[in-house]
Amino acid sequence: MPRTVYLNGEYLPESEAKVSIFDRGFLFADAIYEVTAVVDGKLLDNDGHVARLARSCGELEMKNPLTAEELVHIQKELVRLNDVKEGGIYLQVTRGSSGDRDFAYPENTEPTVVLFSQSRAVVDSPKAKKGIKVISTPDIRWRRRDIKTTSLLAACMAKQAAIAAGCDDVWLIEDGYVTEGGSSNAYIITQDNVIVTRPLSNDILHGITRASLLKVAKQENLVIEERLFTIEEAYAAKEAFISSASTFVWPVVAIDDKPIGSGSPGPIAMQIRETYIEFALAQAV
Amino acid sequence: MPRTVYLNGEYLPESEAKVSIFDRGFLFADAIYEVTAVVDGKLLDNDGHVARLARSCGELEMKNPLTAEELVHIQKELVRLNDVKEGGIYLQVTRGSSGDRDFAYPENTEPTVVLFSQSRAVVDSPKAKKGIKVISTPDIRWRRRDIKTTSLLAACMAKQAAIAAGCDDVWLIEDGYVTEGGSSNAYIITQDNVIVTRPLSNDILHGITRASLLKVAKQENLVIEERLFTIEEAYAAKEAFISSASTFVWPVVAIDDKPIGSGSPGPIAMQIRETYIEFALAQAV
Repeated sequence: MPRTVYLNGEYLPESEAKVSIFDRGFLFADAIYEVTAVVDGKLLDNDGHVARLARSCGELEMKNPLTAEELVHIQKELVRLNDVKEGGIYLQVTRGSSGDRDFAYPENTEPTVVLFSQSRAVVDSPKAKKGIKVISTPDIRWRRRDIKTTSLLAACMAKQAAIAAGCDDVWLIEDGYVTEGGSSNAYIITQDNVIVTRPLSNDILHGITRASLLKVAKQENLVIEERLFTIEEAYAAKEAFISSASTFVWPVVAIDDKPIGSGSPGPIAMQIRETYIEFALAQAV
Repeated sequence: MPRTVYLNGEYLPESEAKVSIFDRGFLFADAIYEVTAVVDGKLLDNDGHVARLARSCGELEMKNPLTAEELVHIQKELVRLNDVKEGGIYLQVTRGSSGDRDFAYPENTEPTVVLFSQSRAVVDSPKAKKGIKVISTPDIRWRRRDIKTTSLLAACMAKQAAIAAGCDDVWLIEDGYVTEGGSSNAYIITQDNVIVTRPLSNDILHGITRASLLKVAKQENLVIEERLFTIEEAYAAKEAFISSASTFVWPVVAIDDKPIGSGSPGPIAMQIRETYIEFALAQAV
């Protein structure tokens, strides 16, 4: 059955959802997005995504087209119309179109709003059980990774390089330090059981799952250090993992062909995953 | 009269030209583009643009959808159908759509091909006569500026910052050195009449107008140094200018509110502009 998607006020069959070639999302990647996980037909951590959308709009002087209530209504409608049990709701807002092409922001354009659902196993994900293998590669992205824009070509290239190398994903390296995964935050667990992840700045995305996960880890009395770490530290780590709304937590079992710890999913990462899912589900809407 | 544009084999009224929300150009900025100038209804320096398109496709492992002959045919049709005397033809190729959203390159997608015309004065441009004022701002773009992709949000933000400062454009600074203009190559002319511009690398776009202009300048026995230059050197320059297919050559008369040379368009820049236009028109098709 074709999906029903949302475009600028209308619910449409996916094949009919089209935007102008003059849309600034198409011409300039002048657009932002969010992905909210769905489990048991409910939205996880959605307040965080709605808040980050508003922040991204602010950073780009873009009109925030919908209230939080309106957005949640559309998200829930798409869950209902497409009978989504597990997966995610993708949301993209562009600056719209002035009817022509000019770099500077046009005045008074109507934002383009697109939402669609993706059904897939997220709790019983095979990669969560087996873990993923990553390669390290230079972080060539722009310097405002805190804004969640659709300028994602660097991320696509990096993921493609991982696949070409027979791996699942990348860890991005800048000045010798790990910034992030291909579309996730990156963590290591040291031999002393300290969870290390890069502190927030313009160099990384301010992950919604990251924020919840750190809260959960603190409640579990795990020790967290938000600091830079090198790829060599990662090679020597006891465990490694990534987090994102699409994966929750996936253990990283090898980096650059070097097994991490035992080379199988680490117990602390798996515990964090379970606890995060419980925590997020308890508050899901 | 509405423009006729080209989309995937069809010539359409501009209001009907739409692409799927799953197009990777829309979701990931997984797309490349070119702009070819039009003067007297003819395409300037187009071989260079067609060649660079092919190079961008290669760098991104993207199928090059059309032969040079097919592209030129479409470009000329758009000039004819829209009666373009002066302006440009914009061309964008995306990786197309797999019907869903996943970072890695999908296999066997059909590229999306979009072309449209823009009519405007390029030879008798007021900014060519008056010159432009620029501000310097950090270059926050990604590290593969040699690939002409639609990941242009950083450029949009920079242009917007220039306009907010009452100026026309930006010069981008990295590690103290000028990389480029907002969507152009940047040049200074020293007090000794040496034209200085940054050498080609992944740090800047390999401008088609730049290549022709350097050829022309050599024929005119002007001295050219392809080397890095700082913004302080630019402040102290005799002249400054930018080049691109949309501007040809525009003198820069002020940087960060500091007048360059006399504060009016410099004679060498204006000479290069005239000579470039003559040269390009003589070979236009």
